[in-house]
Formats: sequence, C-alpha cells, structure tokens
Amino acid sequence: MPTLADIVTELETRYDPRWAESWDAVGLVCGDPSAEVRRILFAVDPVAAVADEALGWGADLIVTHHPLYLRGTTSVAATTFKGRLIHTLIKNDIALFTAHTNADVADPGVSDALARAVGLTGPLVPLMPAADDPGRGLGRIGSLPAPVPLAEFAREAARGLPATAGGLRVAGDPGRPVQRIAVSGGSGDSLLGVARAAGVDVFLTADLRHHPASEFMEADGPALIDAAHWATEWPWLADAAHHLASASAARGITVETRVSETVTDAWKTTAKCEDFT
Amino acid sequence: MPTLADIVTELETRYDPRWAESWDAVGLVCGDPSAEVRRILFAVDPVAAVADEALGWGADLIVTHHPLYLRGTTSVAATTFKGRLIHTLIKNDIALFTAHTNADVADPGVSDALARAVGLTGPLVPLMPAADDPGRGLGRIGSLPAPVPLAEFAREAARGLPATAGGLRVAGDPGRPVQRIAVSGGSGDSLLGVARAAGVDVFLTADLRHHPASEFMEADGPALIDAAHWATEWPWLADAAHHLASASAARGITVETRVSETVTDAWKTTAKCEDFT
Amino acid sequence: MPTLADIVTELETRYDPRWAESWDAVGLVCGDPSAEVRRILFAVDPVAAVADEALGWGADLIVTHHPLYLRGTTSVAATTFKGRLIHTLIKNDIALFTAHTNADVADPGVSDALARAVGLTGPLVPLMPAADDPGRGLGRIGSLPAPVPLAEFAREAARGLPATAGGLRVAGDPGRPVQRIAVSGGSGDSLLGVARAAGVDVFLTADLRHHPASEFMEADGPALIDAAHWATEWPWLADAAHHLASASAARGITVETRVSETVTDAWKTTAKCEDFT
Amino acid sequence: MPTLADIVTELETRYDPRWAESWDAVGLVCGDPSAEVRRILFAVDPVAAVADEALGWGADLIVTHHPLYLRGTTSVAATTFKGRLIHTLIKNDIALFTAHTNADVADPGVSDALARAVGLTGPLVPLMPAADDPGRGLGRIGSLPAPVPLAEFAREAARGLPATAGGLRVAGDPGRPVQRIAVSGGSGDSLLGVARAAGVDVFLTADLRHHPASEFMEADGPALIDAAHWATEWPWLADAAHHLASASAARGITVETRVSETVTDAWKTTAKCEDFT
Amino acid sequence: MPTLADIVTELETRYDPRWAESWDAVGLVCGDPSAEVRRILFAVDPVAAVADEALGWGADLIVTHHPLYLRGTTSVAATTFKGRLIHTLIKNDIALFTAHTNADVADPGVSDALARAVGLTGPLVPLMPAADDPGRGLGRIGSLPAPVPLAEFAREAARGLPATAGGLRVAGDPGRPVQRIAVSGGSGDSLLGVARAAGVDVFLTADLRHHPASEFMEADGPALIDAAHWATEWPWLADAAHHLASASAARGITVETRVSETVTDAWKTTAKCEDFT
Amino acid sequence: MPTLADIVTELETRYDPRWAESWDAVGLVCGDPSAEVRRILFAVDPVAAVADEALGWGADLIVTHHPLYLRGTTSVAATTFKGRLIHTLIKNDIALFTAHTNADVADPGVSDALARAVGLTGPLVPLMPAADDPGRGLGRIGSLPAPVPLAEFAREAARGLPATAGGLRVAGDPGRPVQRIAVSGGSGDSLLGVARAAGVDVFLTADLRHHPASEFMEADGPALIDAAHWATEWPWLADAAHHLASASAARGITVETRVSETVTDAWKTTAKCEDFT
Repeated sequence: MPTLADIVTELETRYDPRWAESWDAVGLVCGDPSAEVRRILFAVDPVAAVADEALGWGADLIVTHHPLYLRGTTSVAATTFKGRLIHTLIKNDIALFTAHTNADVADPGVSDALARAVGLTGPLVPLMPAADDPGRGLGRIGSLPAPVPLAEFAREAARGLPATAGGLRVAGDPGRPVQRIAVSGGSGDSLLGVARAAGVDVFLTADLRHHPASEFMEADGPALIDAAHWATEWPWLADAAHHLASASAARGITVETRVSETVTDAWKTTAKCEDFT
Repeated sequence: MPTLADIVTELETRYDPRWAESWDAVGLVCGDPSAEVRRILFAVDPVAAVADEALGWGADLIVTHHPLYLRGTTSVAATTFKGRLIHTLIKNDIALFTAHTNADVADPGVSDALARAVGLTGPLVPLMPAADDPGRGLGRIGSLPAPVPLAEFAREAARGLPATAGGLRVAGDPGRPVQRIAVSGGSGDSLLGVARAAGVDVFLTADLRHHPASEFMEADGPALIDAAHWATEWPWLADAAHHLASASAARGITVETRVSETVTDAWKTTAKCEDFT
Repeated sequence: MPTLADIVTELETRYDPRWAESWDAVGLVCGDPSAEVRRILFAVDPVAAVADEALGWGADLIVTHHPLYLRGTTSVAATTFKGRLIHTLIKNDIALFTAHTNADVADPGVSDALARAVGLTGPLVPLMPAADDPGRGLGRIGSLPAPVPLAEFAREAARGLPATAGGLRVAGDPGRPVQRIAVSGGSGDSLLGVARAAGVDVFLTADLRHHPASEFMEADGPALIDAAHWATEWPWLADAAHHLASASAARGITVETRVSETVTDAWKTTAKCEDFT
Repeated sequence: MPTLADIVTELETRYDPRWAESWDAVGLVCGDPSAEVRRILFAVDPVAAVADEALGWGADLIVTHHPLYLRGTTSVAATTFKGRLIHTLIKNDIALFTAHTNADVADPGVSDALARAVGLTGPLVPLMPAADDPGRGLGRIGSLPAPVPLAEFAREAARGLPATAGGLRVAGDPGRPVQRIAVSGGSGDSLLGVARAAGVDVFLTADLRHHPASEFMEADGPALIDAAHWATEWPWLADAAHHLASASAARGITVETRVSETVTDAWKTTAKCEDFT
Repeated sequence: MPTLADIVTELETRYDPRWAESWDAVGLVCGDPSAEVRRILFAVDPVAAVADEALGWGADLIVTHHPLYLRGTTSVAATTFKGRLIHTLIKNDIALFTAHTNADVADPGVSDALARAVGLTGPLVPLMPAADDPGRGLGRIGSLPAPVPLAEFAREAARGLPATAGGLRVAGDPGRPVQRIAVSGGSGDSLLGVARAAGVDVFLTADLRHHPASEFMEADGPALIDAAHWATEWPWLADAAHHLASASAARGITVETRVSETVTDAWKTTAKCEDFT
Repeated sequence: MPTLADIVTELETRYDPRWAESWDAVGLVCGDPSAEVRRILFAVDPVAAVADEALGWGADLIVTHHPLYLRGTTSVAATTFKGRLIHTLIKNDIALFTAHTNADVADPGVSDALARAVGLTGPLVPLMPAADDPGRGLGRIGSLPAPVPLAEFAREAARGLPATAGGLRVAGDPGRPVQRIAVSGGSGDSLLGVARAAGVDVFLTADLRHHPASEFMEADGPALIDAAHWATEWPWLADAAHHLASASAARGITVETRVSETVTDAWKTTAKCEDFT
C-alpha cells in the first residue's frame, strides 16, 4: 500500500509547489508521511462537513483546493474551527493536503475543468500565461462551437456547474452573441484587466464585487458572469482524482478516490426581489 | 439662488469630511464654487447613465455616495469613462459632490436608512462606534418587533430594498428565529468580526466573498444575508435629499432634489441552477 | 484636419511615454481624442497665463513640459488653480498634453536644445545614458570650440537663454578655463555625482540648493552654473514644435504651432546686495 | 476534575496574555478546552524529550516557557520535529500551553526565580519596568547581603543554577567587589543598555554574543555573566507549578504538577583550551 | 578655564538637543570633553575655509549651524573633504559642535535673528509653533513699522543681510504694500503651506525651487523672497556667540567668541540676462 | 616607503570591497592616504587594547576584521570608546582598515585559516558559495584524514585554536564518528540550514544561541561545536599578514607586519557547575 509520502510525491509531480504564488500555502498540512494511504477524498474546502464525510467513508487523506491556514498560525488548539479540524484529522489518522494556486496554473488545472464544464470546446489557452511556461497560467480562454446569445450561454453554464442557491449573475446585454469566452475558477477580480485586453466576449469567474464589476461594465467590453466560488472550482476535483488514480495505477499502486459532493458554498437560500423584471 | 459653495457647506455640515476614512476621497470633485445651484440629483454611483439622467432633468449638481476617483488620477482625458464623465459634467455646468464614508458613519447615515428599509424598528446603535462619538459609526444594530424565521426576515428585507436581479443570498438555517439584526450598507466583510462579537442574530450587508463568508459560517454565530451593494446604499439617498432640502428651506433657500432611480448594480439578469432545492 | 488622437500619436512617437520615470505623469491630461486640432501652443508650465495665451490665440491643444498633476488628484473642482485650469480648458475645448521626463531623455531632447542655446558645438552625448539605449538619457555633455574663462562662458550662456530676473549664478573661480561642459534642463541636483565622475569643466543646470552645491564645491571638481529652471527648458519648446509641424507635414497634415513667450519663472525682480564685490 | 479551560484561565490570571510582547505567541497551542486535566508537567522547551517525559508520567498538559511556533506556521505535518510533536500530543490527548514574555514580566516572574536561585536577597525590582505597572517588567535588580569578589559570586551562582556543560562565563576583573546585581532569564542582549544605566555591579543573563558583550566591556561599567539560557529560566518552573497547584487548591481543585528535569540545553559537553590561565 | 564639557552643557542649555528633528544630527561631532576651551568660533558651515580660519585664530572649538554628517558615516578617512576636516580638527585639538534644528526652533533662535536683520520690529511669534511650547518653533512672523512696497522691503532686507552674489529674488508685484512678514532661516519650502495659511504679506526664506515657488504664486497669496541659505542663517551666529559669552561670564567663566566672516555660499559670481527688464 | 594608499590597494586586491555584504562597512576608517606606512598590526577587534599595542610597537596602520562603525555614526567625539579610539589613532598617525565579510568570502579567507587550524586537510570548498564565483563564499567544508569520535575532534580543535576561557561547547553524542566537517569563522547561525543541507558530520562556528542550536539538534543531523567568536577568526590574521608582506615584497616594497596576541574575547574566566557529568 502506498505511503502518504508516495501520494504527496505523485500530487506534487502534477501540482508543483514551486508554481504556487508566494503568498500561498500549499502542500501537506497534517499527517505522517510514513502512514499508509488507501482512500483519498477530494474537496474544495477544508471544513467540518468535509471531515465528517472523510470519517464516514474511512478516508486516509483529504486533498482540498483551499488552504486551511493561508496565513500562519501559532496555535492549533481546539478553540477555533480550524484547530478542531486539526484535532479531528490527527486523532483519526486522516492527512490533509492542499493544491491551490499551483493547481490553478497547472496544465491541465482548475480552469480547464471549469471551461469544459461550461461547454467550451476545442483548445484552451491560459488567460494569463506563466512567465516561464505559456502552457501554464491563470484562467483559460476557449470557444463555443457557435455564437449564442449571452443569456443562453449563461443558462448552459448553470446547467454544467454544480447547483448552488445563488446560481449565476450576468452583466451585459442578454441578447448579445458570445462565442470566445474566458473563465477563471475562484475569485477573478484580479484578472478583469487581462480579460478585457484579451478581447473575449464573456468573462466567467466568481466573487466579483460591486466596484470592480461596475467599473468594468462602464467601459465597453466583455460581459461578466459571476458564479459561486465553490461551483467554479468543484469541476477540477474529478480531474485531479482521476489523474491521481491512473498515475498511481501506472506505477502499480491502487488507491481509491472520491469527490466530495458536500456543497460548501455559504449561501444556502435566496430571497427574490418581487418586482424585478 | 444658492451657490455651489453654499450647498457644499450645507452638505459638509451633515457629512463632515473629517469623518471620512483616511483612504477615502470625499467632497467636491468638479464644479465652480461660485456657480448657482437649483436642481440636485442624488445617486449611488457616478456613472454615465446617472450623468444622462442629470442632463435630462437639468441638474446643476450630482451628489453621489461613491467617489469617482477613489485613488488619485493624473489625467481626466476623455479616454476613459471617468474622464468622459468629467468632460460631460464640466461642459454642461454640472458639479459632482461625494459623501462616502463620512455619510456611512454620520448620525443618521447610510446604515440607518438601510435598517429602516429592511424593517428594523426602535433605536439604532452603531455596530462599530466612532472613537470620538459613540453616536456615529459604521453599521447599525436594531431589532424586529418580534422574532421571525430567518427566511421570513430575508423575504421582508427583499421587499424593502430596491429590486435587483440577484436579490438576497442567505447563509444559515432558514428556520432559525431572528430578531436582533446588524446591517451595514456596502461591502461589509471588514465588519464580520464585530458582528459576531455583537452577538446579533443576522448580519445583512453586501459584497461578501466565499472565504470570509464560509469561515464566518463555520464558527457558530450570526446568519448572513448578502444583498446588492447598490441596493443597500440606495435607501440613504432619499434621506440625504430630504435633509438637504429642509435644512436649506430653513435658511430661506429653495433647492429641488431628486433621487435617481437608475439601477447601477452591474448584474442585470441571473441564470438559475435547475436542480437546486 | 487631424484629431487630437492623431497628434498624440505623433508626439508619443518622438517622446515615448515608456521612457518616462516611474514617478512621472505624462501624456494626455484633458481633451477628447476625437476632437479636431489645428493650433498647438508649446509652453513649459501649465498655468493660468499660458491658458490665457492659448485662449487668445485659439489653440486647440497645449503641450507642456511640466505635468499639471505630478501626484494623483481625486478632485478637479475649481477651488484650486489646477482645477480652475481644467475647467477653463474643458469648457473652451483646449486639450492639454505633457511630455516631461520622456522628453528629457529623448534624442534629441530637452538638454540638446539647452546645450545648443548655451553655445555648445559638435556632438552631444548623454550625461547619464539610458540603460537600454546610450543615445538617450538625462543631460548632455558637449564642448565649446575653444577654452574660455568660466565667467565668459557664463556671460555667453546668459545671452543664449531667455532672460530671467535672477540670471545665472556661478560657483568656482571665474578665471578658470572651461571647454567640456555638461548641461541638464531643470532640477539637476541628482546628477551632481555623474557630472563629477564625467570630469567635465562645468555643470550648468537649475534649482541647486545650498547643501548639494556647497558640498559639491568643497571637493575639487567641475564649476557649477545655476540658471532659472524655466529658462533651461524653454529652448526645447521650439525644437518640439518644429518637429511636430514637419513630421505632420510629411504625412500631409497641417498644424499651426506656436511657442509661448510667457515667462513662468516665479522670480520677477531681484534685490542686490550693495557691498558684494 | 478541572477542564483544560479551567487551567488555562488559572494560568492566564497569573500570566496575562496581554502582557506578552507583540511579536510573541503565548497561550494554548494544542488541546481541547473541554478535556479534563489532572497531571501537568512544567518544562522550558517544547521538545521531543519533554513530550516523552509527559507521556511516561501520564501528563494531560505541558506548560512550557518557550513557544513551539514563535512565527506562524501553515503546516503541522509530521515532516518536522514541531509537526511530529503536535501529532504526538494530539494523539495522546496532551495539551500544550505557553507562558513566555508574559511570564517574564509577571510579578513574580521568571527573573524573580532566577534572582533567588543565584543568591539575591531582599526586595527585587524590575530592571526595565512595564510602562503601565512598575511592579512588572523585564529582568530584576537585587542585592547580595554583602559585597563579594566577582569570581565568588559567579561560583555561588553556578551552584544555585541547574548544572549545564558550559557553566558560566564571566567578563570583568574577577576580584572586583560586587553586591548590586541585575539578572534576566533568557537572552539578555537587549537589556545591556538599561543594565549599564542602572549602575549595577554585574548583569547575569544568557545568549550574549561577541559584539554586544565586547562593546559593553569596552566602556567601563558592570561585569557580565553569561549562563545557559535553559538554566536561567528553569528556576521559574517550580514557582509556576507551585502557584498553579495552590491557587487551584484554594478553589477546591486538585491538580498534580511536576517540574521536568530533562536538560534541554543543546551543549552536552565541552572541550577546554589547555593553556588558558 | 572651562572644559569642552562645560561649554557643551552651556550650549545645550540654550539649544536643547531634544528639540532637534528626528532626522537631524546635533551636538558634539569631535573633541575630547575634558579638553580646555578658550576660543570659540561660530560659523554656518563646517568646511575647510572655516577650519583654516579656526586654525589661524587659535580656536579650541567651532560651533556650526550645519551638521558635518547629517547621515551617518562608517569612515572618517581623509579621502573626502569631511574626513580631511575631521583629521585637521583632531590633530589640531579643535572640537566641533553643531546646533541645527534645535537652534532653529529655540526662543530666541535662528529666525529671530533673521527677522531683526531684515528690519522686523515688535514681538515675533513662531510661524509653526512647537507642539509642546508655542514660544518655540520654526520660522517667525513679525511686522514692519508701516506698510512699504514689496520692492522696498526687499531692498531693505538685502541691506540687512550679509552680502552674497545672488542677492535676493522676489516673486510678486513689486508695488504691493507689505507689512506682516514671515521669515525662516534656511530651506523654507516645507513651510510654504503654513505661510499661506498664516495670511502674511511676504514669506522670506531660502532654497526655493521652481515647482514649489511657481505653484505657490499661482494661488493668490503672500509674495516670496528667496535669499542665500547662508545669508539667512548667518545673523544667528552673533546672537549665539553673545549669549554663550554672557551666560559663561555669569558663571565666572571667560571665553572668547568670534563670528566667522567667511562667505560659505557656493555662488561667487553671477551673469545677468541683458535684456531683462 | 609605501603610502597608505598603496597598502589599501594591495589589501583591496585580495579582499575586494565589492565582495562585502550590503550591510557591511569595510575599507579605510581613518588615516591619510598619502601617509607613509611601515608597520602594520593585524587584529580581530578595533578596541583600546589593540590601539595601545599599535602605539607601543609604532604601527602606522591597524588592519582589523571587525568594523569600528558597522552602522553609521554622526559623531566621533571622545565621549564613547569608539570616538576615543578615533582620536587616539588620528592624533598618533595610525590608520585603521577593515576587511570583514569581504575577507570572510575571499579565497583563501577567514574560514580557510580556521579549517586548517582545527585540523582539516585536503581541499576546502565554500559552505555557501558566492553566486558569481563558487571558489569564494561563506564557511568551508573539509575533512579529517580519518573518522574520529566527536569528542576527540573537539579536543583537537581546542588545541588548534588560540586559548579562551570558555573553550568549546559541543552538542551531539560525544562518541559519534565525524570526518566531514563544516566551519565558519564568527557568528554562524545564519548558516545552520546550509550546514544541515550539506550533510556534514559537524558544524563548528561561534555565537550560537539557545533557540537556533536547540531547534537544530531536535532534527537529526550534524553535531555542533561553538567556539569563541574571536578564536575562530584569529587564525586568519597570520594568513592576511603573510600575504600582504609577500605580495608587497614582490613589488619591491618592504612592510613589517605583526599579528596581535591580545585576547579580545570578552569572557575572561568561567564558573563550572559542580555536579555536571
């Protein structure tokens, strides 16, 4: 049976920690590298519901996209939800591994899976290529087989992504035809400028706030679609799980993988405005 | 007829520029202090559609909540939407004045109007009182006349706010009873900690992103409601317009005021997730 | 008739904005890129007297060496002389364009014109060459046809520059012979070290203060001549105007140019010390 | 039986975390606040040998002077000695609590115990009093009953402290009489200036390096004694353990305390210079 | 005979080093505090010509206004003019003491002497009072006995100050009447704002450069007069020398003082612009 | 006879000042470059006892390893031991020159001499090679002819170094065999990580404090030996002196050199812990 160290090596081969942003915190968060690993759960967020799912299934390792501690901590006491998670994981011999911005920029990475989920076909290229390798980078640009109205693309994208209460929010004329599309999993406000410069028809991402979105729309340019942060990153989990299983199998190692279906988007319901047309 | 300088004095009496945050940019953005002012339009955002409304109505002054230039600019050339706005305003003798974080903390201020709009009654107190005057401050805490389920409060709040495509997003058990409620107009993520410490049942604000909202909900505490940024600040316009008109009248000065009904929220439509329950 | 955008393109071909220092603010300050431009006034400073001259002559564009807003502003209200200038220009359809440190380092640039004005002949080389092109750079080094006493060179330089109340101030033995000379238009204190290292006989520049000048003279080395900042940059205006007109003509475009003769040096008179010999 | 939360409250009553330096990391490092605590081990350093001692004795809590993570970490994986310690502690239900600079400045605190251990009698006052309470502070000044030669004081101090390989190093004339003495547990180089200003005869501390010590001795002033860092802080453990047991007993709570005798000074042996006299 | 330490004490009683700006470097620069001091030379600048004057007269101490090393040095080798000065002074037993911004803000200080020199009568108040004592501060505001035209005041000021080649430069209408006048010895550009706010008729100072002076004059307000930096500080030397001699005499100590007449302004000659009217 | 400038040139040929760290202060500290130099004293520290030795011997120059002013000073007044040293040196025509981190990284440099002194044979390579020349760098790695127990190596090292009161402190199992050894003269804590990465058996250096040493030993790896800072750098003096004399002789220049035998380690005696075994 593979050890945790073996699996970490396999994961870091595909998601090289050197690709992570300097402010990021990726890699092994807890666990003993000599422990044996058979079952691996993939999830977006390292939260209690995901740990419960791991416990119920008997996972030895959770691979998440988001770091538990993005900023350093000097305490893991069980006085916060993060410390409680660490206690639960260590007491139950469950390791935690994070692939965050190194998975974002990998080829294929988080935005490739998002692009396919919302219906883009053909080749995908990074929206903001890495300086040392244009095949890697943040976001992806791809195309629809044929132009469709913005509203239709939004409906298709909503069908392709896992369901969330808020669905997708759309800025721009619903009838404008769109075909060339940029997507970026997670918070995409830092990429608004490059999306405009790329001359795409739409930029689909998450966590857009009023000022960046409003100022972006004041200047003529791409339409915007804002989805749930969780929903834009979830499609990557299956890709990462599949790759890990098959790369391990190629080395004669058998691991079981599972993608968490726990919705960790915070927004559970909505309230509509009655008179909005 | 009053001059622009007279109106600025009146506005800054109620919204003292010294109350603004150090990073903010409030006060007169363009216009000649000696010009006469008769018609004043109040709006949340200094954008082209609002300028068109001002032109159509014959306004001499636009009072907005959001600054045109939050960070300094070295050019107002008509090569950006901001520069075009400046050209339009100056060429048409329309002045622009901003009351932003000084209006947020005023007593009454932006969050007082929001609190009343979503149905809070009785006295309101700042969520984060100003150091030098506990009557001023960011956000407001108030109460409903009686406890209601979270989902019901959210529906009532949606009815009280101006309609937007996205409506309200709600985090927390829809059935939990809520009565004591904090609200803060605009982006409220910096106030999540004080909202928790205040022990309220719900915190309603705008522009909440995945990580702050998700980590907030992992620790037991208040429910969260996220509305459109624009919608949370719009209720204040009528209050500010009314005050300016009556304070001026008390000095024998007649000004006409109007509240813009242009929806400047970027999100014009949504796409639902079909299978979300 | 050319548009403002055409003229900006022409100016930025000769004075590439990428050559400007990172702290500088160059390019179009106000004006509509689609406006037509026929008359262009060149001046050192964007001040009221220059705007009046532009108005009187019917200029469509003022090109200045100094930025109006070197540091960013969040207001162009007509409550400061800068805001009043913006209002005057926009209301009268006069654009404003700045070529500052990008004109200083251009080849030919501000210090080439200065060098010729004070009588230097033969080839001129940058005092501090640009890292990526040794033909560009700050300041110029050139030579007189034959050595002359410092005092005589100072008298000739005063004759070659536009007249100012303060004239030129000279540090060093008036009788020492000088031939190899460095000049730099505008404030030259940051170049004192390279002027010394270059081993020139004199360094002529502007805005030298007591401590840098005094410490420079304590170490044996070049003599110093301090002229009015305005006077050292004015000679460049004719060169820039001439170039723009002829480059435009070569494309079949006719523009009228004029060099402002308004003295914008602050010092209008002097008071002599009676007993200084 | 008391919970961990009860014991933390008791410890933080005596060693208030607000007294800690801003760069310090004190309080609970791991453990569940609702766990029951019966046996508490006190030690200077959170290292593997101390954890082994805790395991062997059946401790529920280790109280150390030094933080495990002085700077924040984003991983507690068992790939470093610190991560292995966290795993060992959590898997064996042993909590870890740190009282560091808050114990240094407490009254009585780390340097009080050190002062008594090296033979100082009579009242002790802080060497560097806290701004808000002169009874607290870093270091202590006290006196010997009568003046003795420096060498004799050093021998007595060596007898009073727990034994380490390096013993004490002494700077200054061995025969000079000393009576008024400053001590500071742990690294004392930041206090050299106040020790000089206090006019004491000797300053005993730890971790003094060549440059601070050498420059200090070049100026006439106090003699210096450098002991093992561990040895200067160990005397405090018994005081802290005794206080916790009696304060708990006063509330009807019984806890067992033990002071670790593991020497965690890194230096295990020495090599003498043969010809040093 | 007094020691250097005695004289330093006397000087620092009047010019308390705690009044100096945080970036300044005041006090004793070289010399042995136990050396005897009989002759004291006062000068503006610590330069070779002043050291020669001190040597020729047999001075034991030079008191200068300007620091030799405003920024710290790690070498006093005789490879720079500053190192050569240190070698000359130490080898000839001449000490060097600096009273800089502590003398600027003293009461009376540098600007009091300047104010009297240019003819101001009656009480003088600081232009920018110290936070802890409104009697101290930078610059002084005083008045002429009666209003005179600006040009006449400039002529009188030129007569009252020591002669320099450049004389005084004047900005503003020569005929405007002036009476209430601010002065500040040395570089005064940081005080332009307070001079405007003070509503004086003229601000006389030194080292004003084009941009601050030009922008100051664009807004209606005080006239400006720019004198030689050295000339504005020289009047203080006699005051400081007189005070030291009489304060010493009051303690029965006899010292000889002398004010250096060496002109250390860098500008030795000027070249006029022929056609300036 | 050579001038000081000649000797400085010779020294800087071998110890190029460009090799020094950016925070360091190397080169000539005082002295006149045109003075003649016949006798040169080499010492580790620029302190009074060394100046006395120089005076007694009639030295014209002292070459030290440690800077007198590592951080810049604005005063050399004889009110501190550093200022008194400057006065003594200048009044007695003794220059002072420092070769610090440029001597550390030179080839051969400080750690080469240390490596030979403690018995390493065969080729030596830098522990942390310089980026631009792998022959230079901090520390050296070398080998013993055959493995010996750690305690035996420590005894041999103590015999090879000049005697100090504290001798050597050793961390690690005294019986473990060691052969491949890293050494670094002076404070070596910044090199602990590279020493571990280099996989040596022992790292011998100076000024190691509790936390770095203790944390280093918690992770399995090299043993540590801590010697007196002074003792680790003293061996280099003879090498530098010998090189200077022979390089000068090769140019026909005769200089006398001497290595100071003054022990400038601060620790003059020790007190043993009686019961340490």
